Amino acid sequence: MLEKKPPAIKRPIITLTTDFGSRDHYVGAMKGVICEINPNAKIVDITHDVPAHDLMGAAFVIRAAFEYFPLNTIHVVVVDPGVGTKRRPILVRSENFYFLGPDNGVFSFVYDVERISQVYELNASHYHRQPVSTTFHGRDIFASCAAYLTKLMQAEDFGEPIEDYVRIQTPKPQAQGREVKGIIVHVDTFGNLISNISLADLQRFLQHAGAKSFRTLVGGKPVGAHAATYGLGQGEVFTVSGSHGMLEIAASQKSAAKLLGVARGQEVLVQLE
Amino acid sequence: MLEKKPPAIKRPIITLTTDFGSRDHYVGAMKGVICEINPNAKIVDITHDVPAHDLMGAAFVIRAAFEYFPLNTIHVVVVDPGVGTKRRPILVRSENFYFLGPDNGVFSFVYDVERISQVYELNASHYHRQPVSTTFHGRDIFASCAAYLTKLMQAEDFGEPIEDYVRIQTPKPQAQGREVKGIIVHVDTFGNLISNISLADLQRFLQHAGAKSFRTLVGGKPVGAHAATYGLGQGEVFTVSGSHGMLEIAASQKSAAKLLGVARGQEVLVQLE
Amino acid sequence: MLEKKPPAIKRPIITLTTDFGSRDHYVGAMKGVICEINPNAKIVDITHDVPAHDLMGAAFVIRAAFEYFPLNTIHVVVVDPGVGTKRRPILVRSENFYFLGPDNGVFSFVYDVERISQVYELNASHYHRQPVSTTFHGRDIFASCAAYLTKLMQAEDFGEPIEDYVRIQTPKPQAQGREVKGIIVHVDTFGNLISNISLADLQRFLQHAGAKSFRTLVGGKPVGAHAATYGLGQGEVFTVSGSHGMLEIAASQKSAAKLLGVARGQEVLVQLE
Repeated sequence: MLEKKPPAIKRPIITLTTDFGSRDHYVGAMKGVICEINPNAKIVDITHDVPAHDLMGAAFVIRAAFEYFPLNTIHVVVVDPGVGTKRRPILVRSENFYFLGPDNGVFSFVYDVERISQVYELNASHYHRQPVSTTFHGRDIFASCAAYLTKLMQAEDFGEPIEDYVRIQTPKPQAQGREVKGIIVHVDTFGNLISNISLADLQRFLQHAGAKSFRTLVGGKPVGAHAATYGLGQGEVFTVSGSHGMLEIAASQKSAAKLLGVARGQEVLVQLE
Repeated sequence: MLEKKPPAIKRPIITLTTDFGSRDHYVGAMKGVICEINPNAKIVDITHDVPAHDLMGAAFVIRAAFEYFPLNTIHVVVVDPGVGTKRRPILVRSENFYFLGPDNGVFSFVYDVERISQVYELNASHYHRQPVSTTFHGRDIFASCAAYLTKLMQAEDFGEPIEDYVRIQTPKPQAQGREVKGIIVHVDTFGNLISNISLADLQRFLQHAGAKSFRTLVGGKPVGAHAATYGLGQGEVFTVSGSHGMLEIAASQKSAAKLLGVARGQEVLVQLE
Repeated sequence: MLEKKPPAIKRPIITLTTDFGSRDHYVGAMKGVICEINPNAKIVDITHDVPAHDLMGAAFVIRAAFEYFPLNTIHVVVVDPGVGTKRRPILVRSENFYFLGPDNGVFSFVYDVERISQVYELNASHYHRQPVSTTFHGRDIFASCAAYLTKLMQAEDFGEPIEDYVRIQTPKPQAQGREVKGIIVHVDTFGNLISNISLADLQRFLQHAGAKSFRTLVGGKPVGAHAATYGLGQGEVFTVSGSHGMLEIAASQKSAAKLLGVARGQEVLVQLE
């Protein structure tokens, strides 16, 4: 997590993470609404290519990206199969950032690492674009409220505080004896497999057990010894120190996912040597 | 359509809609030309993934996105198979916006809903990037003129007024007896089918006929009853109130297009009950 | 190449060209780091869809896009299979621009056309984001240094000058008798084939030989006569004057690549008539 940063905001930033894809008018409509309310807001796309309705995919991406942005950046995440149903639209005020999105658990990985000050239901309807469509809250609630938030920066103006927001249990690695069991939480564009085993935890585990090295199995298949980076691995597939602080399985200029034939959710087993 | 907005421009906005894709240097070159002429122009991508040469696809996207932007936003659309031939480059001044693109009918859906003040041929060549390539007017004419327009905001400086601009007849729904016949005008990333039947017109039609509900057939196949939103539909495929004010055919977390096996252009038949 | 431009910078611009794709958090993380250091920097995506590890693909795209941007634009290119190994991170100061990326030859096409003032190894580690990941220099070195460069604009502050930077020999067309032999250096989204034969050189070659016209063979197959633009070609596949000043092989509203069954690297033979 980042250190506490100074509170001044030079220029408000809104990031967007959605499953809207790049072919349609949806992202453009959201950006238009933001520009209309505050043309000085800086809009940064994180991705619009989360697979359709892939809640945990979006949860991973926002968790992996949010902390690199300046203090008080507003992160909007819209992967929202329940749009227009009783699921609530929420605003999460954390120690360093704001998050807007549906209350469907999409911020569950964020909740694991960022101190949450308060969660609000976005029910102050005068900050919604009227009439609110039943099928596109990304435009009428989330983009609209995010843009007004850049002007007000008072989370409590946007609705009632709630405590019973949805938090999906994120997969945690399990250490037992001389083994750690984790899973693949993301397969990236290159076919690198990102696990939920943090390098810092693994380091502590090694020290505690007095071990110097470890071997890794993915879906039961052993991979090569740990390397500092992609270009230095021995063998076809091996572990590296992922850029996000997690143990990663990679192949030099090839797709580890294809070579191993594994996908998200697959077990990763680390055995101390 | 949006209400009349105040005329002040805080920060000029140029939107881009093209079929250039995301792999090549074309979009970058357009943005470079805009930045060179006016680094303060805000550039917003609507999409660059219109299928190659798909005029009506681009016509739909710009129509679905343009009105969410602030007054006097400059919308550039480049789907231009006739680049360098006798087709004219044009600037459309409407009541609320500017549109630049080839005179090939790509603004036909816009002409249906936005009051057009005047259309100009972009023949004031001192606003073109010289020498003008015969194969890339997106860079040398449209991006260049759009950027100069952010500085001048006088449409008449950019060329001669014309009246005979190309307007493609857009498909209109037909009401007859207790039926309305429309077509699918767009299939979105999720596989939702967007029709050309407006919800407002359908509401009026229902009231006039004293009907309370309706059933819908797509390509002759009946779909489930109308639902408020995606998550509330009964059955596999059903109609919802689309975010853009049109009747839409959807499936909960699935692709209606795949389930029905239909594509753009397919008939949609609404029957009052 | 562009003419010499005035030195004033109204607003610093950083362009991004990577093979990170659009699905992951990598591009978002780079943008977050830039915004954190200088929220006033304007970030322009050229492409993130260079095929994974395709060095020469990235080399072509940055060469085709860089010169349209304003003087002193900072171009960041991250196609970096050797990240974390001994390959150096570099900053190239040219007459008109800055380029940051791995020293793996990705700027080889730029070196052909832009006067290089000095190349520096990016080893002033106080401008790196700490701790520097072994697997993501795009975020920790290139984005970080590019953002600091918008504030300092003194290339020499970022590391030691070097002379032995990597320069890959780019393919040059060969003229012999009444023939010019070149190759396809890029296949674009439309399936147009961009050669390495410049139209200016071809014009001079024609004049020198007293020839008026030429015929072209791609991979040994003859294509139609040269046309001014895509819509004016005779026959199925033909040559046009590409927007970037190179001889291009195209098909009207079709993919020349598919019709000819050719890819990058294929021979292009021009024969004077």
